[in-house]
This record gives sequence, C-alpha cells and structure tokens, in this order.
Amino acid sequence: MLKNKVGREVPEVVEGIGELKPYNGPFSYEPETRKFGRQIAQTKPGDSKLLDSIEKAVIATGLKDGMTISFHHHLREGDYILNMVLDVIAKLGIKNLTLAPSSLSGVHAPVVEHIKNGVISKITTSGVRGALAEAISGGILDTPIIIRSHGGRARAIESGELKIDVAFLGAPSTDEYGNANGYSGKSFCGSLGYAKQDAEYADKVVLITDNLVPYPNVPASIEQTNVDYVVTVDAIGDPNGIVSGATRYTKNPRELLIAKNAASAIEASGYFKPGFSIQSGTGGASLAVARFLKKTMIEKDIKASFALGGITGQFVEMQQEGLISKICDVQGFDLTAAKSIGENPDHYEISASLYANSHNRGCVVNKLDIVILSALEVDTDFNVNVITGSDGVIRGASGGHCDTAAGAKLAMIVCPLIRGRIPTIVEKVTTVITPGETIDVVVTDRGIAVNPLRKDLIEKFTKAKLPLCTIEELKEKAESVVGKPKAIEFADKIVGLVEYRDGTIIDVIKQVK
Amino acid sequence: MLKNKVGREVPEVVEGIGELKPYNGPFSYEPETRKFGRQIAQTKPGDSKLLDSIEKAVIATGLKDGMTISFHHHLREGDYILNMVLDVIAKLGIKNLTLAPSSLSGVHAPVVEHIKNGVISKITTSGVRGALAEAISGGILDTPIIIRSHGGRARAIESGELKIDVAFLGAPSTDEYGNANGYSGKSFCGSLGYAKQDAEYADKVVLITDNLVPYPNVPASIEQTNVDYVVTVDAIGDPNGIVSGATRYTKNPRELLIAKNAASAIEASGYFKPGFSIQSGTGGASLAVARFLKKTMIEKDIKASFALGGITGQFVEMQQEGLISKICDVQGFDLTAAKSIGENPDHYEISASLYANSHNRGCVVNKLDIVILSALEVDTDFNVNVITGSDGVIRGASGGHCDTAAGAKLAMIVCPLIRGRIPTIVEKVTTVITPGETIDVVVTDRGIAVNPLRKDLIEKFTKAKLPLCTIEELKEKAESVVGKPKAIEFADKIVGLVEYRDGTIIDVIKQVK
Repeated sequence: MLKNKVGREVPEVVEGIGELKPYNGPFSYEPETRKFGRQIAQTKPGDSKLLDSIEKAVIATGLKDGMTISFHHHLREGDYILNMVLDVIAKLGIKNLTLAPSSLSGVHAPVVEHIKNGVISKITTSGVRGALAEAISGGILDTPIIIRSHGGRARAIESGELKIDVAFLGAPSTDEYGNANGYSGKSFCGSLGYAKQDAEYADKVVLITDNLVPYPNVPASIEQTNVDYVVTVDAIGDPNGIVSGATRYTKNPRELLIAKNAASAIEASGYFKPGFSIQSGTGGASLAVARFLKKTMIEKDIKASFALGGITGQFVEMQQEGLISKICDVQGFDLTAAKSIGENPDHYEISASLYANSHNRGCVVNKLDIVILSALEVDTDFNVNVITGSDGVIRGASGGHCDTAAGAKLAMIVCPLIRGRIPTIVEKVTTVITPGETIDVVVTDRGIAVNPLRKDLIEKFTKAKLPLCTIEELKEKAESVVGKPKAIEFADKIVGLVEYRDGTIIDVIKQVK
Repeated sequence: MLKNKVGREVPEVVEGIGELKPYNGPFSYEPETRKFGRQIAQTKPGDSKLLDSIEKAVIATGLKDGMTISFHHHLREGDYILNMVLDVIAKLGIKNLTLAPSSLSGVHAPVVEHIKNGVISKITTSGVRGALAEAISGGILDTPIIIRSHGGRARAIESGELKIDVAFLGAPSTDEYGNANGYSGKSFCGSLGYAKQDAEYADKVVLITDNLVPYPNVPASIEQTNVDYVVTVDAIGDPNGIVSGATRYTKNPRELLIAKNAASAIEASGYFKPGFSIQSGTGGASLAVARFLKKTMIEKDIKASFALGGITGQFVEMQQEGLISKICDVQGFDLTAAKSIGENPDHYEISASLYANSHNRGCVVNKLDIVILSALEVDTDFNVNVITGSDGVIRGASGGHCDTAAGAKLAMIVCPLIRGRIPTIVEKVTTVITPGETIDVVVTDRGIAVNPLRKDLIEKFTKAKLPLCTIEELKEKAESVVGKPKAIEFADKIVGLVEYRDGTIIDVIKQVK
C-alpha cells in the first residue's frame, strides 16, 4: 500500500486487475501510449446485420468465457437491455465475464444473481445503486470493482485499459445497417453520448432496438461503420424510467437559500460575464441556482456561450430564449432535453471523450467556466465524496464530478450543511471521488467556504459581502448541531477501487461490516 | 513481377515502399489487423492551441526529415494551404517528406520545385493533374507514387499503412480550440469528409483558417479532441477555385443522347423503384441522366432513399423537392451543395471511411443501388481507366470510382464512343483503376454494352428494346471510325502504383518516353 496525494492508502497491485498507479495531482500523469485499435472487420455489399434475437447476436459475436461486455446507461432506471442480455448469456452458459457498462442503477439488481451463478466476475462502472451496490459493498465479488468517471471511462477505453470485447447498446432508433440515434422512437432517451465510445472501440458492436427505421437513418449518433449486428426486440426500456418527466423546481426553503448563496457567489466570482459557460446538475439547489442566474442574465444582458453536461429542460429553454448560444449534451436528463437534441442543431450531442476525457487533445470541460456540483460529503481538505453513503455502502456514481471540477475555472459544491442527522462537511470524507485541490468553493445553507488556494475568490467574495467562513468552521457548525459522526466500521477487504480521471487510484472502498 | 487477376504485371516489392499484394478480386482480401492508434496527447485547461503563423505550427508539431504530411483537397483548384505549408517547410530546411494529400490538382504545380529541392521524395494521392502530373509521369521521383481511391485512402489510414505524422487541414470555419466546419466563412467548401480521416488519425493535427469564430463552433465536422494547433492566416483559398459556381446543364447533343440511353437502361434495370439510391458525377452526361430520371420519378411517384457522393446542386434541389429523402455528402461539387450541408439536417456530412472504406463494418457505397461513372477508357474486359490520358500521362484521379463500382448493384459507365480522334472503348485500357468484374453496363452514344456476368440485365434490356451490343462491337465501331490507336510507348521505370481499394496492387503506371 502507498499513500497517495490525497493521503489515502492505495494498493500497488491488485489480483485480477494488475499494477496500479497512485493519484498524484489532477494533471501530473502524462499519457505516453498510442490509442487502442479495435479489430478491423469487413462488411460486404449485400451482407445483412439484422438478427431477430439477442441469443443469435451473442452467438454471432463469438462471446466467450472471460471476455468483457459493455452497455450504456442512457435508458437509466427504464433499462431492459442489460438484464435481458445477461439472462441470455447465462442461459448460453458463458461465465466469468467483466461487466463494463457506463453506469449501473437500481434496475440492475438481477446482476447479483449473475454474480452468484458465475456469469459476472468483475465490474467496472461509473456508479451503482440498490441491491447490487449493497451486495458489492458486502463483498460479493473476489475482485474489487473499478469506479471510473465518465471522462475516465472514455480515457480507459481509448487507451485500451478497458478493452471491450462486445458492446450491447440499446438504440431507440436505428436502421438495419446500424445508423442509430437516441431521440426518436417510443424508448427515446436523447443523447447517446456515452454509447458513442463503446461503439467506436468495442471489437464487436450489437445494437438492440425496438424501432427499426428506413435506411439511411442519418444524422446518426452511432454510425453504421461501427456496428456488427442489429437485433430487434419488443421493447428496450420502460419509458417511465428512461426520462422521468419534466424537471421540477424546488420549493424547499433550505435548497433555495443554498441556491441564493451560490448565485451570489457566481455573480461575484468574475466568471459571470458575457460568453461564460456553465454546467449544472439536476438537484433541487442546482436547478434553482440556474434559475436565479437566469434572472440576472436577463437584467444585465449577459449571454452564455454554452451549457454542458447532462442537460435539463431548463438549459434548453434558456437556449431557445437566446440566453445560451449552444448546448453540448452527453446525456439528457428530462423529456425536454431528450426531444430537443433531435430538433435543434445548436443542441449538440457530444461523446464522453469530447465531454470529459483528459487524455485527448482537449475535452469540453477544459473550456468550462462554472460547474455546480453536489456532494454527499466534503471534507476540510475540500475532497468530495459522491459514491458512498453515511453507512459506507456504495449508493452513487462518480459521473462527471471529478472531470468537471478539474476542468472548470470555478468548481462549486452546493450542499446542505446537514442531511437528516448526518453532517455533510466532515473531517475526512469516507471516499474521495474528487480531490480538494480541484474544488474552489463550497456553498451551504449556513455559509460559503472558499478553498484557501483561491485567494482571488476570497478577496472577491469578501468585497461582495458574502457569508464567508472557513471549511473548518462549516464542519464545526455541523458538528455543533448533530455531533461528531461515529466512524464507519469497515472490514479489510477492498471491494472497490476509485480511479481518478487520469487512471490513477485516488481511493479504495472497503467491505462494510 | 506477378500477373494479377486483371492480367497486369505488378511488382512484389518496391524499394522505398516494401512488399505488395497483387489484386485478386474485389472482396478477396480479408483484413486481419487492428486499427492504427494515433499518439494520445493531453491538452490541459488553459492551454492555447492558437498560433499566428504556419512556421510556428510546423515547428510546434516537431516535423522532421522523412515524415509524412497530409492535406485535404476540399479547396480544390482554389487551395492555398498545400503550397503555403510546403514553402514554410522548405524554408525550415526539412527534407525527404512523404506528401499524402487526399488529392492533388493543377494548383499544386509548385510541388515540382519541392521535389527538385529534396523537400518531397514520395507522394500518395487519389489523383494529380497538370505540371506536377507531367513531372511524375516523366520520372521525377525515385519512388513510385501510390494512387489510392477515396475509400482506399481511408482504409490505409485506419490500418496504419498510411501513417500521417502531421496533417495540415484548411478550415473554412473554426474556433480557437479546433471545432471546425467547411460550410461557413469566405472560403467555404461544404463537406470536410476527406479531412475527417486525417483529423482522427494523424499524430499531429494543425488547422489553418481565415475565419476564427467564437467557441464552441458546433455542430463540428472536425472536433476539438482531434486538433493540436489552430493557425490563422489571411486566406486559405481563392473562392473562385474552391467551388466553381452553380452546376450547368449540357446542351451537347451527344451527351444528351448518352444520358437518354443511360436513363432508359436505369429505368429498365429493376433498380429504379421507390427507395432506390444513387450516386452520379459532375460530367455533362451524368448530370443529364439525373435530370431525365427526375422527370420519370415525378411521373411515376418514385422517391429515392438517398443520394451519395460528391454532391451537386441537382441532388440538393431534388431533396428539397421531396424526391430524395437524405443526402450523404463526402464532398461538395458546387455552391448549392456547399451551402446546403450547413443548413439542412437531412443533408448529412460523411467521412471518407463511412463513404467508401471496404474495411470497416459497412460503408455507404455498399448500400448503393445505382452509380453513374465516367471513363477515359473502357476495355473489352470492362476494366476502366480514369487516371492516364491517351498519351500515357497522369491526368485524372481514382476518386471513388472503384469504390462505388464495387458497392453499387448497378455500376454504369457513361462515355462517348470516341473523344476527338481517340476511341474510348479499347482492347486494353492503359491503366486499370476499376476492375471489369465490378462494372455492369457501359453506355455510349452508339450503343449499350452489358457485362456478360450480368445475364439478368441483358435479359431486361433486351425486353426493353434498348440499343444493346457487345463491348467488342463497341470497340470495333470506334475503331471503324478512328482506326486502332497506336500503342503508347513507355519506359521501363514504374512511376506509379495503383492500389485497389483493399490495398492490393491492380496496376502500375510507367514513365512516358
């Protein structure tokens, strides 16, 4: 074990994974290799890619014991694909696979059974929730899972560290030759940004669709040159779970107070000026920040150059109203966003690599002025945890958290000082997803703390008379209300490795007792 | 030397190039390697890609003696980029480079000087014309040039056979981070389809622009993740040479007669039905064919699924009128096409690989029903020459000729029986670009010849009472008018290797005496 730059003990070698590099700062590791090259294949005129069952597709790909399979998570809690495919693979008796989706959620609880029956032996993902997360935290797997950020996964795929043998990708719309998009059909989800990566690098690519349309289905998010097989099924997902309706605005007074503080800080930061760019999440406070900013943008005639990220209807409306010039969308968060991307050329679909991969010639997060992020915990070194809950169990996702924090000029955490009886600001976060040196400001309902590295912001915020305090003061305020939280008890077994976006190990997740 | 499947003597090894494979049929060679992986690079937040001179860019890329540089030919006869860059490279004293543009034309005559002064020692291109072509045919280079089709070049880049060290790509519009398109700005050219390949695979990518626009310039034909440097110059090209105005319709009675024969053959072929797809060139006869077909499409309510290729305003208008559903555009041939691609989502920009690379999971030419192609010569084996003139000198381009012929269900040559005093139908073409087994029909002003392999078409055309004859009869008709052409005298030196789209050698070009 080595102590890395955020003070976490991380292993140098893990059985079943190999040698590891410790995290050593957000841009300290320079890539030196060449891009991974997937198998070249030839599809001749007249060849058909169309198959009428997942079973035929699995057989056609030549999937074998020990290989790596991938999926995208754009169908979110409505996803039917992953469970359907694993059931078929199990029936065919294929074992010992690495499951490498862009993320996992509650709907994927059946994976637990496929771990027990030996079909799945390793997992790499952005996040995991529900019964599967609990089983992993409980030590069900012999090899730790790898948690990667969205940018980190794109990097790992492009470098060949994550070599995908077969990608099974849900396609809300495709023609029989594999030109697919995500914004039309009954199972529409909007952007296919995460799936683009798998389609370009997997040795075999299978599209699974419930909406076969005439050739050529262009513009295409996934192009025919990347697709081996197209499978038709009755339904790829449950519309109710794919995009969960329109974005709702919070009326929670604490969230509104956090949002007001955050908006004031952004306005005082110097980054809120014509041509600024922004990314914001779907939490109540985050959405409210954007709403407050919108008001000021109209009053002061400030127009943004672009909004980035997982996109909500709020930014779509602002773009339509002329307040934002372009939208760069890796993932749609609601119905409005999912529809808009197919209709508006200024609403641009981006891949995970273009979004956030630090090892290409410049991802979009590099050009981000402001990002508003959430946190389960923030510690006095400004490290952020968004993956493990107060009981130590995995319950979240790395997502684009560390990617955007590293890229943005102003990386701002918005969070309540206390959740229930649990403090958010703590001495040491349970798990580090995003290193403190990339976090600039923490905004709570009880005050704003600025990273001491950002003396410029402290000066600006002081001048603007914002309710500033130190991060230690925030921690003490929290503890004065709910007391010092009892340390979580972990077993020795490492159940998860948290990769920083550059492929180094920033933390480990241990088995809960 | 080996005799290949079209009966041409081709070398097994060439000094300075290496081992070669002889052509052995259009789909006989199965790719077995992995895709080439270019150097991974990291651009950090705050890094600037902007440089104010080509010289600074050449130095920044680390270009060295013996490397390979590439360019795109979308600026056509208006291109300033290639000559500007070579002048800078010559001034910097860098020697012995391989010049690997997507094509070369008359405007690139100054390359002759750069061959003489040792800057350029090898060339690979789709075509070459004018003084440079004459110098090459005269034997100026020690190593033969390699002629590749558009699909073949994409294949060679993706397989690593053509490894580009530095790509210098003219960008009619880009932001400072490298998001570029070809359809806006004073030097607009439309599609950047050929440039996409270089941008994705070159180890270093330099965009050169005369039109820097605000970030983010999306939708982007070339994305920022692929670009190392952006250089601003006063002008990247001469608008008069880039897209040569609107497409004009022929009034030449012989061309109209060929077109009428061709349209009748297409209508009788069985492929002319709702949902058909088509590619057609810019020659007078080709354009006239499409005009005749349009009339029938309206009369019989036949709508096409897509038009492909280098695109003219004619197809743009038909798409706007609802006669064609989608346009897949690798290269704009006139002002109308160059503008439309930026305005119409159903006018879709495709890369050279998506267009015509036989070694991916299915290029668009595979889905083509009908292609109408020109020829300098066709021989009695239906082999086609579009590269060398009647004096044996290089004067054309391989282009997408052999790609579309291999992909399309109906590959049709339209050509006059005689040009000036030169027969078009001959016993043996001077140079084989497209093998006869992929050509279905040859339409002339004096009759239509069908490849004997296509008994089905002979039957249909006979039933339709088309003016059928054998290819030998066409040859004899030509010879009866102008006599048998005198054989061209060549020296022994091989000045060009003609690659078929799969990377095998289909023919050689010898030095003219």
